[in-house]
Amino acid sequence: MTGKTIYHTATTLDGFIADPSDSLDWLFTQQMDDDNPLLNFDRFLPGVGAMVTGATSYCWIRDHLAKTGEPWPYTAPLWVMTHRTDLEPLADNVTFVSGDVRPVHEAMVAAAGDRDRWVIGGGDLAGQFADAGLLDEIVVSIAATTLGAGRPLLPRRLTLELLEAGRNGDFCVARYAVKGPLNG
Amino acid sequence: MTGKTIYHTATTLDGFIADPSDSLDWLFTQQMDDDNPLLNFDRFLPGVGAMVTGATSYCWIRDHLAKTGEPWPYTAPLWVMTHRTDLEPLADNVTFVSGDVRPVHEAMVAAAGDRDRWVIGGGDLAGQFADAGLLDEIVVSIAATTLGAGRPLLPRRLTLELLEAGRNGDFCVARYAVKGPLNG
Repeated sequence: MTGKTIYHTATTLDGFIADPSDSLDWLFTQQMDDDNPLLNFDRFLPGVGAMVTGATSYCWIRDHLAKTGEPWPYTAPLWVMTHRTDLEPLADNVTFVSGDVRPVHEAMVAAAGDRDRWVIGGGDLAGQFADAGLLDEIVVSIAATTLGAGRPLLPRRLTLELLEAGRNGDFCVARYAVKGPLNG
Repeated sequence: MTGKTIYHTATTLDGFIADPSDSLDWLFTQQMDDDNPLLNFDRFLPGVGAMVTGATSYCWIRDHLAKTGEPWPYTAPLWVMTHRTDLEPLADNVTFVSGDVRPVHEAMVAAAGDRDRWVIGGGDLAGQFADAGLLDEIVVSIAATTLGAGRPLLPRRLTLELLEAGRNGDFCVARYAVKGPLNG
């Protein structure tokens, strides 16, 4: 049995994962209840065996760690999908790749085994996995905010299936299976 | 005691209330459970004493009724905010107005009394009520769909407070209080 490829992200109610200047300031004013079993990020992370991200999210993590002095927070290997050549690996198991997501997915499956594969973001990278039929689930923590503009959650026409929905702290949380392209 | 002004709408997970050609086809494939008490539209409507909509939603209702042959479905008076002069009233209590939302809100309060005032849409009209500090709540039924592009749910930067969240049929449903502009 193999794990699932899951796009797990926070979003605003109007579908933005970051504001137009890539800020997440709107997000960190919102509380999540660590003891709440519903779509709890702290319970999700230990089940993750491989991760993939675009350059923007990677740089956000890098800058956040530089600012706070926190150590690299992940044990699972991370693939960074980017054409940029100026980025430094922040850990031994960080790999820079570009192009087709399918060989990246294969490498992630091999690394993760029966654990899950986390698509950190951004939205277009998650869309590339969906285009290839390789995105199994979307888990969203919807912050009690609208931004009106910013980085889109998932710029694709997709049919989903709601698996779970509820509340965790300030967030409306939902888990979806990705069924495929939206017809029509 | 007066009712509340509520923007009650369906949206995609990525924050669109209609696709780029104003189609709602993606919406009508989704099921809502009429017996589910959570944010049930059929339980919301009888509590509505006044309604307001933009021209796009009004024309959508008009065309839908023309296609299906259904009678005008509302008893509460409806204000249509538009600069267009070519629209016909579909019922005796349909009034065309334009300009500032504040006098419209006043007229709606007078008509609705202790019942609620429903902002049908679109997103910018709901935003104009929010700009004037006159939007009390947002109730969203989030369809299990992404569109990637279309008519935005609410093109504003707003701080909300989650009041209720859960599932109704295929929808993740949530109710928010509007707290004001998002700082920063």
